[in-house]
Amino acid sequence: MNRLRDSTRKKLTTVSVATLTTALFKRGLRNQFIQNVHPLNPDAGTMVGEAFTLRYIPAREDLNPITVFADREHPQRKAIEECPPGAVMVIDSRKNARAASAGSILIARLMKRGVAGIVTDGGFRDSPEIAKLAIPAYHRRPASPTNLTLHQAIDIDVPIGCGDAPVFPGDVIVGDAEGVVVLPTHLADELADEAVEMTAFEDFVRDEVMQGRSIFGLYPATDQRTLADFAAWRASKEKSK
Amino acid sequence: MNRLRDSTRKKLTTVSVATLTTALFKRGLRNQFIQNVHPLNPDAGTMVGEAFTLRYIPAREDLNPITVFADREHPQRKAIEECPPGAVMVIDSRKNARAASAGSILIARLMKRGVAGIVTDGGFRDSPEIAKLAIPAYHRRPASPTNLTLHQAIDIDVPIGCGDAPVFPGDVIVGDAEGVVVLPTHLADELADEAVEMTAFEDFVRDEVMQGRSIFGLYPATDQRTLADFAAWRASKEKSK
Amino acid sequence: MNRLRDSTRKKLTTVSVATLTTALFKRGLRNQFIQNVHPLNPDAGTMVGEAFTLRYIPAREDLNPITVFADREHPQRKAIEECPPGAVMVIDSRKNARAASAGSILIARLMKRGVAGIVTDGGFRDSPEIAKLAIPAYHRRPASPTNLTLHQAIDIDVPIGCGDAPVFPGDVIVGDAEGVVVLPTHLADELADEAVEMTAFEDFVRDEVMQGRSIFGLYPATDQRTLADFAAWRASKEKSK
Amino acid sequence: MNRLRDSTRKKLTTVSVATLTTALFKRGLRNQFIQNVHPLNPDAGTMVGEAFTLRYIPAREDLNPITVFADREHPQRKAIEECPPGAVMVIDSRKNARAASAGSILIARLMKRGVAGIVTDGGFRDSPEIAKLAIPAYHRRPASPTNLTLHQAIDIDVPIGCGDAPVFPGDVIVGDAEGVVVLPTHLADELADEAVEMTAFEDFVRDEVMQGRSIFGLYPATDQRTLADFAAWRASKEKSK
Amino acid sequence: MNRLRDSTRKKLTTVSVATLTTALFKRGLRNQFIQNVHPLNPDAGTMVGEAFTLRYIPAREDLNPITVFADREHPQRKAIEECPPGAVMVIDSRKNARAASAGSILIARLMKRGVAGIVTDGGFRDSPEIAKLAIPAYHRRPASPTNLTLHQAIDIDVPIGCGDAPVFPGDVIVGDAEGVVVLPTHLADELADEAVEMTAFEDFVRDEVMQGRSIFGLYPATDQRTLADFAAWRASKEKSK
Amino acid sequence: MNRLRDSTRKKLTTVSVATLTTALFKRGLRNQFIQNVHPLNPDAGTMVGEAFTLRYIPAREDLNPITVFADREHPQRKAIEECPPGAVMVIDSRKNARAASAGSILIARLMKRGVAGIVTDGGFRDSPEIAKLAIPAYHRRPASPTNLTLHQAIDIDVPIGCGDAPVFPGDVIVGDAEGVVVLPTHLADELADEAVEMTAFEDFVRDEVMQGRSIFGLYPATDQRTLADFAAWRASKEKSK
Repeated sequence: MNRLRDSTRKKLTTVSVATLTTALFKRGLRNQFIQNVHPLNPDAGTMVGEAFTLRYIPAREDLNPITVFADREHPQRKAIEECPPGAVMVIDSRKNARAASAGSILIARLMKRGVAGIVTDGGFRDSPEIAKLAIPAYHRRPASPTNLTLHQAIDIDVPIGCGDAPVFPGDVIVGDAEGVVVLPTHLADELADEAVEMTAFEDFVRDEVMQGRSIFGLYPATDQRTLADFAAWRASKEKSK
Repeated sequence: MNRLRDSTRKKLTTVSVATLTTALFKRGLRNQFIQNVHPLNPDAGTMVGEAFTLRYIPAREDLNPITVFADREHPQRKAIEECPPGAVMVIDSRKNARAASAGSILIARLMKRGVAGIVTDGGFRDSPEIAKLAIPAYHRRPASPTNLTLHQAIDIDVPIGCGDAPVFPGDVIVGDAEGVVVLPTHLADELADEAVEMTAFEDFVRDEVMQGRSIFGLYPATDQRTLADFAAWRASKEKSK
Repeated sequence: MNRLRDSTRKKLTTVSVATLTTALFKRGLRNQFIQNVHPLNPDAGTMVGEAFTLRYIPAREDLNPITVFADREHPQRKAIEECPPGAVMVIDSRKNARAASAGSILIARLMKRGVAGIVTDGGFRDSPEIAKLAIPAYHRRPASPTNLTLHQAIDIDVPIGCGDAPVFPGDVIVGDAEGVVVLPTHLADELADEAVEMTAFEDFVRDEVMQGRSIFGLYPATDQRTLADFAAWRASKEKSK
Repeated sequence: MNRLRDSTRKKLTTVSVATLTTALFKRGLRNQFIQNVHPLNPDAGTMVGEAFTLRYIPAREDLNPITVFADREHPQRKAIEECPPGAVMVIDSRKNARAASAGSILIARLMKRGVAGIVTDGGFRDSPEIAKLAIPAYHRRPASPTNLTLHQAIDIDVPIGCGDAPVFPGDVIVGDAEGVVVLPTHLADELADEAVEMTAFEDFVRDEVMQGRSIFGLYPATDQRTLADFAAWRASKEKSK
Repeated sequence: MNRLRDSTRKKLTTVSVATLTTALFKRGLRNQFIQNVHPLNPDAGTMVGEAFTLRYIPAREDLNPITVFADREHPQRKAIEECPPGAVMVIDSRKNARAASAGSILIARLMKRGVAGIVTDGGFRDSPEIAKLAIPAYHRRPASPTNLTLHQAIDIDVPIGCGDAPVFPGDVIVGDAEGVVVLPTHLADELADEAVEMTAFEDFVRDEVMQGRSIFGLYPATDQRTLADFAAWRASKEKSK
Repeated sequence: MNRLRDSTRKKLTTVSVATLTTALFKRGLRNQFIQNVHPLNPDAGTMVGEAFTLRYIPAREDLNPITVFADREHPQRKAIEECPPGAVMVIDSRKNARAASAGSILIARLMKRGVAGIVTDGGFRDSPEIAKLAIPAYHRRPASPTNLTLHQAIDIDVPIGCGDAPVFPGDVIVGDAEGVVVLPTHLADELADEAVEMTAFEDFVRDEVMQGRSIFGLYPATDQRTLADFAAWRASKEKSK
């Protein structure tokens, strides 16, 4: 597996999920945005890391008494202790937020272990406490009922669906205050580069728009002048650093 | 078309969307509330303006490469430059928030052009930035993927549906921290007048309730005394101005 | 009917809804969480009280002109004046948030009357004002249109469904910043006791996790040492009070 | 309560649910169609009868072991034995078809007791057998799991919602191969008369259309000639009887 | 606009909607299937024709009394008389089947006028009668309530969305017993040709599979032998005609 | 793994899915019914077999060109050739019926290979043809678009969710004209026995009800007499064989 390079990780913290979806769209990838998940702590900063996945299936009552968590091999608990530092745990909860995907204690443990973030297309319990932790966490909506009510953890680090997006172990997951996107591993470097460029240009456009310029010719840059202006803007930005 | 009068616009900024829906209900209009749209910036103040509409249909892939935005006649870009100052842009996104209806640059441009607000029954991208702009914006939920992923802009300023409400160009759109309502043009003046009166009465009721008065006889005012009390309350309010 | 004991009420204000759902799960009760309702004022503190219910059915237009509220026997208005102080009003709105279950004036009246909170599986209108009241209120999402648009109040204090949970009059309702749970009356005391114990243990676990301890053996407490450590932690907490 | 007159019952068996919804619409009643319920036995003929209602709430597990049906006072079983001959049983299943509202044995008993039909906005189990019974039955979709899995019968013959329509005990329920409509008791006679007239006219229109006539002027009858033609058509129909 | 050629029309009646979606998929078009519409009369044969569209928006009560149909310019009625023979009427009902998109009289008129079929992403009323007409009709589910309850016809022959698919006037609409697909005009000829070829090959595959052959190497035809076998099969089919 | 015994298989073909869900309910298993799947060929007889599963995740466009089916290791194609005779293939399509889970050629191949049936919580394409095959098939609704549009086959014979039910490889799957239920392997024998008994009793009850007997005391059998009558009924049935 390609490893996420430090330089790429750094670049990805400076761009938005929206910009990355556009770069993906240009490559024919239209379903990499994890639909309908929201940050519990939007000020936690951008989340970047390789996907480490956990798969749930519907819980069968006889297999899911409260006692199962005593087993160190239980996939949910094992995943919490095995998710690599720097990775993002992504949980396939079948978009079901009627019982919890995880709670604040497990997420605190992930945080302490250096995990970069956690995403479920279901819900977390203890959400007010999670919102105070210094680890980005994304879910659909709060879900107090205990995990075993509806979910049985079954697999670790297999390809999953999350919020209608495909997630392969090792894919690069990026989350910001708006949402979460999944970058195929082999594209992560070039997407990061392209997104950095797009972000610079859009910062320029934003400045121009705030000074009253029309979007025609500017965005996209169909006017000759626009690219020249951008170059000048960029140079002046560099200088003022 | 009736034009929205300045006096009516002013009155509408002082009443709530909830109060306006009651006034509409009394006239047999039950579906003028745009369902399930939420303000990105609830502190932006009340939004009032005539509807300028934009209609999307599902995107056909061959007609919607990223290059289409280079065309100045593209309806989305054209709408951004043509929406009249003081109007509210209302977008029919078929209640689909899986891709963006618009993003922060276009909305910043609307703001600079003096547009009064923007509403979609889909989602916006760059939502954290939009939340900081001084223009009211309403959507269902954040949607990072680029517009062309799912939407093709097809028509400007035709009657549309938005959040299950009918919206005709020129209808008066009012939004507050709770939601958005559509006032038929020919009723805007009388609805504004009635809502101002209702608001005064409800302010009085609220004061009474906070002092411990029962709602029986008070709300609605079936007790003789209530209207007399209201008159007195109003007079004292006037005086204290 | 069992009455909610003061000591139980007090204990319940110190535990979370999530913890209570686990205690219910251990007793085979999996559907006591009111799904998809959210606090308008998450800082209002924990809500505890016995359920006083209000049942709505779909509104038939001829039976629901605006004038019905003039009737003191109208179930909605009657419920507002009759809900006992210390109780929680729970409304069955059939999970329909397209028109309001109630608004700020009625909820202010409940607050003044000493009611402990209000829950609907529909929506409230005047939600920005409700958010400022010192009474916990939970709904699905804001709903400006007046109640009569879609709801007809039909029954007071009968068993209902709310957010897919069964609610019997007198059940103990607990709400926190995350959501709302329904405790069967006869279990309230023992659930409160158990939840207090669980909370103490989870506070200990959280402290340990924040100091870097693994969850294996700790949560659940399968290691001998864990319970000893917990006893020590507890003793030191007691001392430091 | 008004009783359903035999003559009205007879008339209602000759008209369609669609025609009745139009007659209701003219009186401002827009929500009397039970949404999304389908006949299991579309050839069973038109169902007409006064509503006898049964209300379910979500099942609490401890109150709903399989043994509850041994109790003759259990509302579901009681309803089956008490629903009057000629009436239609209407069940409020909260639009939840994940467990059964009833099964073939209970519905066979209703049939034998002379009940006119049964409607749920949930699902029936044993649906292939029900489809063979000579009693009209309507549901959303088949639902094998036993009733107690999700439903607790709580009330008999109270006002309910069914498929988003309000249903009051004694309302006249009419079902055909397309769906089910709820007629307010006090309007049943006049709706029946009007629908019979409308049906005659629409039969005429249909004949004309099948002979190639345009709908302009014909439907609605804005051409003078249309009403004359209708009178002639009707006279000839009478004669040929 | 390209006209649908007779030869293409003929070819399209011999292939399935499923096969056409595959041919579209190969060209990058993934959303041309009209989701969740079903034939009322699956034995009516394959429907082929150019799209003639009708657009509905949510009904505003004051604009939609029953009397509007008296107006010959009312878009719904006008569309019925103007839809060209051989065309397919496609209605954008915003996927709302709670009130009718049309009823049996209008559809009978379309049939008599030689229209090739009708599709709505809402519902039809009088569905049992429509099922007996010799014109293919597709909808989501039966909907008795009269059209004006929820829909206002607003536009004729503009681009629309129907069941999440984009439909442009003149697109070629094909429906079979399974569903409906939208072919972009400029691709209709080549899609028809390709689908005829694919159908021949799949008929061959089906014959082979029914004789016990494995799909490996056969479907797709990765074995050399498969294409040779297919050629032989085809030749023998030709001969036996 | 326990193997499904021939005697158990035989018994299961004589009982209904509804009866089995009741037997499961008595054991605390409430979620074993596969929700919202329907037989394409309800006359195909009861389906019984051990689960052989196939798991789909959302399709990533670059990994799912039409050419992937050329690979004999592609999990979907491999599953078709490897599913054991007598087994039931169960597909986790994430309840997404917007593209096909499989089509008629693959299902014909399963039939020829002696597979007992196929279930998806998505949709099948070529559904009219599948309906004519002599193999039970269950889906949510027809779905013409080719599989790769939305689904990527990823795993064979792992635990999955299907229609909100947990399915483990080797579980015993039973389907009738109403729906499909999942029996845990270790319970299959006893559930079959119990269901056979229940079916006999319910056949007796049905006979009694059709002769006019009340359900009180009869169903459930709380009257002494009922069990005696049942014994007599059973004896006479045996004799008449």
